[in-house]
Amino acid sequence: MRATEDRVHSTLDDLGELLGADRVLTGDDVLAQHGADESWHPPAAPDAVVYPRSTEEAAAIVKACHGRGVPVIPFGAGTSLEGHVLALQGGVSVDLREMDRVLRLSVEDMDVTVEAGITREALDAKLRPEGVFFPVDPGADATLGGMAATGASGTTTVRYGAMRENVLSLTVITAGGEIMRTRSRARKSSAGYDLTHLFIGSEGTLGLITELTLRVHPTPEAMSAAVCAFSELSGAVDTVIDVLANGVPVARIELLDEVQLDAVNRHSELDYEVAPTLFFEFHGSQDDVASQAAEAEALAREHGAHGFVWTADESERRRLWRARHRSYEASRALRPGARAFTTDACVPISRLAECLLETKRDIGETGLLAPIVGHVGDGNFHVAILLDPDDPAEVERAVAFNERLVERAIALGGTCTGEHGVGLGKSKYLELEHGPEAVRLMREIKAALDPEGLFNPGKVV
Amino acid sequence: MRATEDRVHSTLDDLGELLGADRVLTGDDVLAQHGADESWHPPAAPDAVVYPRSTEEAAAIVKACHGRGVPVIPFGAGTSLEGHVLALQGGVSVDLREMDRVLRLSVEDMDVTVEAGITREALDAKLRPEGVFFPVDPGADATLGGMAATGASGTTTVRYGAMRENVLSLTVITAGGEIMRTRSRARKSSAGYDLTHLFIGSEGTLGLITELTLRVHPTPEAMSAAVCAFSELSGAVDTVIDVLANGVPVARIELLDEVQLDAVNRHSELDYEVAPTLFFEFHGSQDDVASQAAEAEALAREHGAHGFVWTADESERRRLWRARHRSYEASRALRPGARAFTTDACVPISRLAECLLETKRDIGETGLLAPIVGHVGDGNFHVAILLDPDDPAEVERAVAFNERLVERAIALGGTCTGEHGVGLGKSKYLELEHGPEAVRLMREIKAALDPEGLFNPGKVV
Repeated sequence: MRATEDRVHSTLDDLGELLGADRVLTGDDVLAQHGADESWHPPAAPDAVVYPRSTEEAAAIVKACHGRGVPVIPFGAGTSLEGHVLALQGGVSVDLREMDRVLRLSVEDMDVTVEAGITREALDAKLRPEGVFFPVDPGADATLGGMAATGASGTTTVRYGAMRENVLSLTVITAGGEIMRTRSRARKSSAGYDLTHLFIGSEGTLGLITELTLRVHPTPEAMSAAVCAFSELSGAVDTVIDVLANGVPVARIELLDEVQLDAVNRHSELDYEVAPTLFFEFHGSQDDVASQAAEAEALAREHGAHGFVWTADESERRRLWRARHRSYEASRALRPGARAFTTDACVPISRLAECLLETKRDIGETGLLAPIVGHVGDGNFHVAILLDPDDPAEVERAVAFNERLVERAIALGGTCTGEHGVGLGKSKYLELEHGPEAVRLMREIKAALDPEGLFNPGKVV
Repeated sequence: MRATEDRVHSTLDDLGELLGADRVLTGDDVLAQHGADESWHPPAAPDAVVYPRSTEEAAAIVKACHGRGVPVIPFGAGTSLEGHVLALQGGVSVDLREMDRVLRLSVEDMDVTVEAGITREALDAKLRPEGVFFPVDPGADATLGGMAATGASGTTTVRYGAMRENVLSLTVITAGGEIMRTRSRARKSSAGYDLTHLFIGSEGTLGLITELTLRVHPTPEAMSAAVCAFSELSGAVDTVIDVLANGVPVARIELLDEVQLDAVNRHSELDYEVAPTLFFEFHGSQDDVASQAAEAEALAREHGAHGFVWTADESERRRLWRARHRSYEASRALRPGARAFTTDACVPISRLAECLLETKRDIGETGLLAPIVGHVGDGNFHVAILLDPDDPAEVERAVAFNERLVERAIALGGTCTGEHGVGLGKSKYLELEHGPEAVRLMREIKAALDPEGLFNPGKVV
């Protein structure tokens, strides 16, 4: 249900007074840009875009909007793959790009407090000189607020955990426009219900995240990388299982299927063997990374790996991982003009080979062009289906394929989304995955914390 | 508000039919035992104790009780230090001791599903032969359900995390007596609100946990231990900060002050120097543990450590850590007949030395006998105040001391409870720690999930 035009106008007048006209924008371009993301969903523009510069301003914005029944949609970098930022009922998109400061950093406590609009790469640039880093790396240069809101993870999660493991505390604007801190800065706490984790992954539907206190980690003395090809995909997965069971503390372990590897070769001008391939990264002392690589190599060879190439050279390592991180662009380059419809299944690792093989068979039968890349240490993989968004038949085939994949993952004890979030596209799977009682509880929580349903309406539950 | 006697009687009749008379007990001894824990709070007995043998039975119990307005209080091993199990409004104590099975174990997935009544040591005995272990170790032989309910942690949290980091999924009975699983068994997920973490630390006030899926870890190839004394307490804390900032992956790092060390010496017949002391444990390969110890020793010596004693000998290591784990009993032995009133402050590590020194000054001024032991890697420490519970003046002094300690910890950016939970004693500090808006949200969540307030009434919020 949209707010009436009158209400929206009065709200925009209030916001103009609060922020000045240059931070309340209603031009077509800016509205269109804030009503679309990287997903295949049709765009839906907000009524206005506003740019707070502080938590206090953000609180005043929420109060002004909600006071008149106008929805608030948080906006970070717009890199969502699930339609999170679409303004389905209009309302005000709150773009946090001007809240991008590091508020404090403590190397003693290994934590940092930032505003929600800072991007991952900007944060990294601030942290590196201090000898620490923030490990969660979803690939895209997302904002930290957006990463918390979707419960993001990525290539390093196998070693360092996801956002859930690396956020200590959040500052959130609640539905009434009040400022709340979810918990103290202590490393651990049992003081009441865990509000921090409730807001991580809530996708802007319970409140507006304006600040985050994050765990940081000491920069490892040495990093090295390795790559190796397998004749069979299952050999790669079995290697991952053995590496983890042996406690080798790999920092990253990523799978690319032969279609993806071919795309990466072309896009990054590399000449890796076109086969199911594992990319590794190791962190530690010089000795550690060498012994970790030796252990991983031995396990990989037991499972049919050939051509295990290891490098401690910094530029070589960066080149390898840049290629991996560009796999999304590499995929899209396989079919110029196409959009990528990206799936996000995640299953227990013991079921991963089965799930992958069945999915590849399905890709073959459906005739889709769809490379696979996976955070295999977590059992999570993405199929990037390259499609013409203007061809309804093709979109329909992709949607049906994804539906089968989601059902397969859930049947294997997994989830419909490992890291991209529910957004617009996956609400319908929540009951299949969690059962009716869990979804009922989620709805009760939404109703309790946002009784008028004005935070990012139409998403999650 | 207690349920009327009529309602309680009808409920007990129903439960007797459901479970048989031998699993619905109302004898004075069993009621007294279930209405008391290890805390200093006066006991409050339930109306009955029941012993479910399955999740389905637990669901039927909740349905029977809540259908007639009778409270349900979950009971694990009764090792709580904050009065969690006291039946303040009577009702039915649900003792989970007969639900102690391992339901499944997957070494490939590094996870295990257990019933909530299994104790930590029983689980350990099942896991060790499989080459894996569950790392959270609060010292007491608590049940896993109780550990999840209080958000427990302990000596290994610095390396392996607390319950929050090691629970993948929970099966919970909700207020209506429905069975719910909080999430799938996938390693990570962004599928909807994080119900798992909402129930971890909810202390039985939102639902009854009956099963848990836990992360397990590969048993390290080698473990070694070290102990070293410091002339100044601040030297020990600075050592901890440096060890963590240098990324030395210590498995345990524990501080004992000179009073506690003396108690441990007497109780375990040891002859360590009576001084502020750090206990270390290292996990990894043979080489790893040796190099970690060498690095820790070098850092400790920079901060005034003397007599760094390192041992890779298994029985020596066990003897050292058994002594540490018996520190609670050792403290109580300092004053036979006394009870220990245990505090649980946790602060950012950069403020730990300040907090500890101020607290020791306060102990001195108040004239309490109160050894200190700390999970210093997490900034968490316990003062065990030895008191005569029948001496109101002494209890009052201890309560006032704890109040000052809590206020000090919160003022330093910390929490009133690092791992013991809120229970009965710490509700009053939640608003000071979190502010009114966060506590309001917690109450809204409680009201949404347990509208009649029948799960463990009078606790947390």
